[in-house]
Amino acid sequence: MNTDFTRLLGLRTPIVSAPMAGASGGNLAAQVSLGGGFGFIAAGYDTPHKFGHELALARAALQIPAATRLPLGVGFLCWQLEKPDSPASKLLSIALENGVQAVCFSFGTQLGRWVQYVRDYDQRVGSTQRTLVFAQVSSEQDILAAVNDWKVDVLVVQGNESGGHGFSNAAPTASLVLKALPLARAAGIPLLAAGGLATGAHVASMLALGASGAVLGTRFLLTPESLYTDKQRQALLDASDSSTVRTMAFDVARGTLGWPEGVDGRALRNSTVVDHENGRNERELKELFAKAQVEGDRERMLVWAGTGVGAMNSIKPAKEVVEELHNECVEHLQMGPRL
Amino acid sequence: MNTDFTRLLGLRTPIVSAPMAGASGGNLAAQVSLGGGFGFIAAGYDTPHKFGHELALARAALQIPAATRLPLGVGFLCWQLEKPDSPASKLLSIALENGVQAVCFSFGTQLGRWVQYVRDYDQRVGSTQRTLVFAQVSSEQDILAAVNDWKVDVLVVQGNESGGHGFSNAAPTASLVLKALPLARAAGIPLLAAGGLATGAHVASMLALGASGAVLGTRFLLTPESLYTDKQRQALLDASDSSTVRTMAFDVARGTLGWPEGVDGRALRNSTVVDHENGRNERELKELFAKAQVEGDRERMLVWAGTGVGAMNSIKPAKEVVEELHNECVEHLQMGPRL
Repeated sequence: MNTDFTRLLGLRTPIVSAPMAGASGGNLAAQVSLGGGFGFIAAGYDTPHKFGHELALARAALQIPAATRLPLGVGFLCWQLEKPDSPASKLLSIALENGVQAVCFSFGTQLGRWVQYVRDYDQRVGSTQRTLVFAQVSSEQDILAAVNDWKVDVLVVQGNESGGHGFSNAAPTASLVLKALPLARAAGIPLLAAGGLATGAHVASMLALGASGAVLGTRFLLTPESLYTDKQRQALLDASDSSTVRTMAFDVARGTLGWPEGVDGRALRNSTVVDHENGRNERELKELFAKAQVEGDRERMLVWAGTGVGAMNSIKPAKEVVEELHNECVEHLQMGPRL
Repeated sequence: MNTDFTRLLGLRTPIVSAPMAGASGGNLAAQVSLGGGFGFIAAGYDTPHKFGHELALARAALQIPAATRLPLGVGFLCWQLEKPDSPASKLLSIALENGVQAVCFSFGTQLGRWVQYVRDYDQRVGSTQRTLVFAQVSSEQDILAAVNDWKVDVLVVQGNESGGHGFSNAAPTASLVLKALPLARAAGIPLLAAGGLATGAHVASMLALGASGAVLGTRFLLTPESLYTDKQRQALLDASDSSTVRTMAFDVARGTLGWPEGVDGRALRNSTVVDHENGRNERELKELFAKAQVEGDRERMLVWAGTGVGAMNSIKPAKEVVEELHNECVEHLQMGPRL
């Protein structure tokens, strides 16, 4: 398949695995890239040591020698970078020094500053190939800023259907794509759709809408390469279309508050959510949650998931997932109505 | 365009205008059918007199002589039909006696009963062409029943993004389409997608997903033929992607309670919604609302709208809307990625 996005990155297929904190490590990202798509490692809440390890895993899987450009990306939570004396800024340096092909910024109040940081880095070291900068946004205001002010290389619009963190009041993915499309086209920037996408048919629908590619998260949790546990994967397999909910319950329960205003996360609904909604006190919530995480108790543990989860019924290697998504997408684009 | 849906109904394009109570009259439905799509009149809360008038308007616009099949449909709220001594059942008789090409059933607890009612009618009068029965559903359970038990002719899946009444916990439209597709295909029934669809690009995306056609509501409110007021139309033009909310506020304020469990409606958010959420008492809410409806006060009046409303920026005749949607859809299906 050939879109402005696949041409920009030299890909066989416009399928991207989302950077998911605690789930997208080096093996997952590498296998997605080996499948012909584009994989992201999540910097998330990692230490420099852990993060360096994931990059090394990716480099080994891809058989890319040191000091050579890595054909994958790293996703950053900008609110982590924006903390005073942030340990996360070290991760950004490590990613750039490793020559990753792309970085993705999201969830910050100063996204433009990080785009500039990368541009400055490339100029300072005199890179022959510049680091591509993706920004993931969910509002008209941020779409405008990303295209016109931050001048990103790839615009990712994340709709309300998405699993993991996102903006509580984000419009549906298809609405955001339509809103962003004229701006992205005028600026010559590829636009990727994210949120609720489960199958190759979904990818085809986003390409027909006008997107240049698609970002999938939950689908890649259901691979042996994701850092999810078997119990989390089983919960995803068992989930239906109506199993997910947008909530702050899990951030409260695990103590990962600090997200920009308006952000919550979509996860499988369970007793942690119910208790949070019913106003159970934070200390109890945290204690019960910590115990549940250790025990893999699905009545309380955290399993991020997008609304497409009901359409996902198998665990298979990430490389195969990419190939399957690609083939199904092509099939759907070919079998459309006779015009 | 040619899908199993266009073939079944003899249409030029698989675009359907939703039956919208208080908005979809005979003129609107007729103009959609004249544009090459398929129009629905909403029986809604009409009296037999008013409903007969709308059918007569349609017949005149289509220049179809009396006692000849009318190439449009009528949508019924089944909870209205299911009331004891329901005045709405008279409307169903009128529709069938008028030889409408299709009926659509939704929002009832005994949908199968109404499908059978129509089958029995056709058999009793010895129709040469049977009345096509659409059912609009929003859950896996109802999708299964519609295909396997009620044996409808056309399955409409309505996602959470839709304007007007719908199921509060419905999955997104694309998820429902994917869930229903294998069942509909196995049964040889066309599947239509409804909810959040604003443009021809949206229609293309649903066809790429595998649907045989698309139902649009809000887009057809923005036509001179809809029964909406100019003030309601202006509010829709001014609305953004984040202007809508699912709520029961308006049903409380106007006294149209009686919907099946789990149903609410998506509308533009205003003070009626805020007051309802804040627990303002019903009598005050009703008084303020009644006054606002008369005055067209947009801070309190009712304007149903789907999530696609932000992408709608013009009022134009329904026939032109259909043609524009069709052309844009074809364009999007043709301009996809090079495979």
